[in-house]
Amino acid sequence: PQPPTPDMGISRNVAIIGSATTKFGELFDADFQDLLVDASFGALEDAGIGPDRVGAAWLGCYLPMAWGFEGNSASLSEALRIYPRPVTRVTNYCCTGMEAVRGAAFAVASGEYDFVLAVGIEKMREVPARASLVAQHVEKGHPVYCKGRTAPGMFALCATRYLSHYSAPREALAHVAVKNHANGARNPKAHFRKAITLDQALKAPEVAAPLGLYDCCPTTDGAAAVVLTRPELAKEITDDYVLITGVGLANTSGYYSAQMNPVFDFTSFPATKYAAAAAYRQAGVRDPGREIDVAEVHDCFTITEIINYEDLGFAAPGEGWRLATSGDTALTGRLPVNTSGGLKSMGHPIGASGVRMIADVCDQLRGRAEQRQVKKARRGLAHTLGGPGAVSCVFVMEKA
Amino acid sequence: PQPPTPDMGISRNVAIIGSATTKFGELFDADFQDLLVDASFGALEDAGIGPDRVGAAWLGCYLPMAWGFEGNSASLSEALRIYPRPVTRVTNYCCTGMEAVRGAAFAVASGEYDFVLAVGIEKMREVPARASLVAQHVEKGHPVYCKGRTAPGMFALCATRYLSHYSAPREALAHVAVKNHANGARNPKAHFRKAITLDQALKAPEVAAPLGLYDCCPTTDGAAAVVLTRPELAKEITDDYVLITGVGLANTSGYYSAQMNPVFDFTSFPATKYAAAAAYRQAGVRDPGREIDVAEVHDCFTITEIINYEDLGFAAPGEGWRLATSGDTALTGRLPVNTSGGLKSMGHPIGASGVRMIADVCDQLRGRAEQRQVKKARRGLAHTLGGPGAVSCVFVMEKA
Repeated sequence: PQPPTPDMGISRNVAIIGSATTKFGELFDADFQDLLVDASFGALEDAGIGPDRVGAAWLGCYLPMAWGFEGNSASLSEALRIYPRPVTRVTNYCCTGMEAVRGAAFAVASGEYDFVLAVGIEKMREVPARASLVAQHVEKGHPVYCKGRTAPGMFALCATRYLSHYSAPREALAHVAVKNHANGARNPKAHFRKAITLDQALKAPEVAAPLGLYDCCPTTDGAAAVVLTRPELAKEITDDYVLITGVGLANTSGYYSAQMNPVFDFTSFPATKYAAAAAYRQAGVRDPGREIDVAEVHDCFTITEIINYEDLGFAAPGEGWRLATSGDTALTGRLPVNTSGGLKSMGHPIGASGVRMIADVCDQLRGRAEQRQVKKARRGLAHTLGGPGAVSCVFVMEKA
Repeated sequence: PQPPTPDMGISRNVAIIGSATTKFGELFDADFQDLLVDASFGALEDAGIGPDRVGAAWLGCYLPMAWGFEGNSASLSEALRIYPRPVTRVTNYCCTGMEAVRGAAFAVASGEYDFVLAVGIEKMREVPARASLVAQHVEKGHPVYCKGRTAPGMFALCATRYLSHYSAPREALAHVAVKNHANGARNPKAHFRKAITLDQALKAPEVAAPLGLYDCCPTTDGAAAVVLTRPELAKEITDDYVLITGVGLANTSGYYSAQMNPVFDFTSFPATKYAAAAAYRQAGVRDPGREIDVAEVHDCFTITEIINYEDLGFAAPGEGWRLATSGDTALTGRLPVNTSGGLKSMGHPIGASGVRMIADVCDQLRGRAEQRQVKKARRGLAHTLGGPGAVSCVFVMEKA
């Protein structure tokens, strides 16, 4: 939907003036509030404002209370001591982090607050067995979910179908893993900082055929934060900020559910297409494959990144895998994707990932991505997919 | 915080054009999606628009997945078949329902969408023992929460302190129960539709001294929904709509926590004071005891309603209990409170309650509260308190 006048809605009315990401990994020595503090104060310091100027905050956390009642709004209030400022928790499966930024962006665009903090977090390595995703599926008795279905199993079906339908080689998946491990090796924040070879990827133990160990992202602890404000206020503080020029969120029917989308064919996620169409319309992007300079996309599995290329319009249907094998999406390619290392190497703390991606794109647009810097990155994209596959969020951002 | 110009922010820029509440109670014959359908389509029918005009939706649910993976955004998408419209889940303890309306209001005020649906829901009567609040406290191992602390036990401490500090009679609590049961008896949607006597309230079995059975709200199933739009669009559809003129949300330190607010003295909830101050400032309310015509407040326990009177500025500190004994807050009093029956008689499905309160206030302002109608109700207030006691949300609404 297009807002009735150009000065309404999120597009071009919300600026990102600060961002920060904690180290991602197995963070047994940092508790939930430690991570919130590190990400939030990092972003505020980057923005050049104190916590007293935060009008409100949004917190993205998918599974709070798995770690002793942490993860709801009070966790952020207590960690930052920003009483009595309003803090709201939002959640939307793997789009949870982006929902925190989207909620904060609506509040800024409405004019209600001047400076708003959006924080995403998840601690996933200290979960008691009973609180794990798989255990919850089984315990809670959903008629479909409890049948032992796991994320690798679900996305493996997409891989099988995609490779068969388009006669694509299994090596294409491995190319995604090699690329994202190479990028992660250059990123001090990544969970895995280790380059791998094509041979290693192909010969890794199978998790759910055809997906092997290097086709799957790990479970990870981490947090990230961004500071939003209106562009006219951003200008008073800095010239070095990023504009949000398009945001799309789409909820479609979940596959495997009784209400399964009849058009779901295991080679594409319609939610991404809808979310991207909305974001591109707002941002004025007509040919994303040429007009997007750098992108972070939801590579929970290698096959997902390939499908994302197509759903985001970077490649035609059936051609996405060629972007991986050709090197087009490598750090030095024509459209670098997941220069952070992606979920594959950064890891995927669910509530944190969307915010982390936006922070990484901001770093690229602000020219401070160091060893991973893409030249002339003026317009960036960040994309998450969740639900599984039923929800997607796309942000388009530009250097102001 | 005041928005920089009058046309920014939520206040006076968001209209409620439709609302609906399901029957509240033990709804074993209605599943999660049944309740979402009844509340949402009820509100859309009341608004006079079809689901195709819904630009986005916000869902308030505090404890999803306790009932087989229901309660996240996909539940609402699937129930209403509003694919691919964005649906966001928000949560903030017992303020969860109001957060759904607040999130939707920011989106409307930003101009991003024309019509937005806010839905609140909770099913609490079919919870497996392992998913109950008390069981979760114990299981998850929080150092304080797991020590058998329950909501009645916590609010009983407030009652003991309040009655002692202000030399207030135990009967004041019973008067709140009698009033709210009398109102609930007139409300076909209430969980309890039974008037009680002062004697019954005073002689009821003790739950946590001094709170007896009739001092405690029940656990309940239910859902409620409202439809929001910009006032200029509302006018094209109807003259019979309600304006949101003030919204305040405040997160303070939780009492009993290591970060306990040093000013917490068990006779007042600072979160309510902050939230009310913000809402009153926006709405231009200076003397709430005289300028509010009707209110729904968070009577999770009878003592809470009395403390709310003071925190909301309806009475001076130590004088709140007199509003209950004098009949001032009864249906025929000078400031009727909880004409719905309150949490006490309506019940308290956590995610639904805040939306239900806003819907009830709308009914009063639109003159359709039937047997519970307050004469000349032009300005109404709705208030929730959660966290427990650390989060509060206040809405002020006026007939357009």
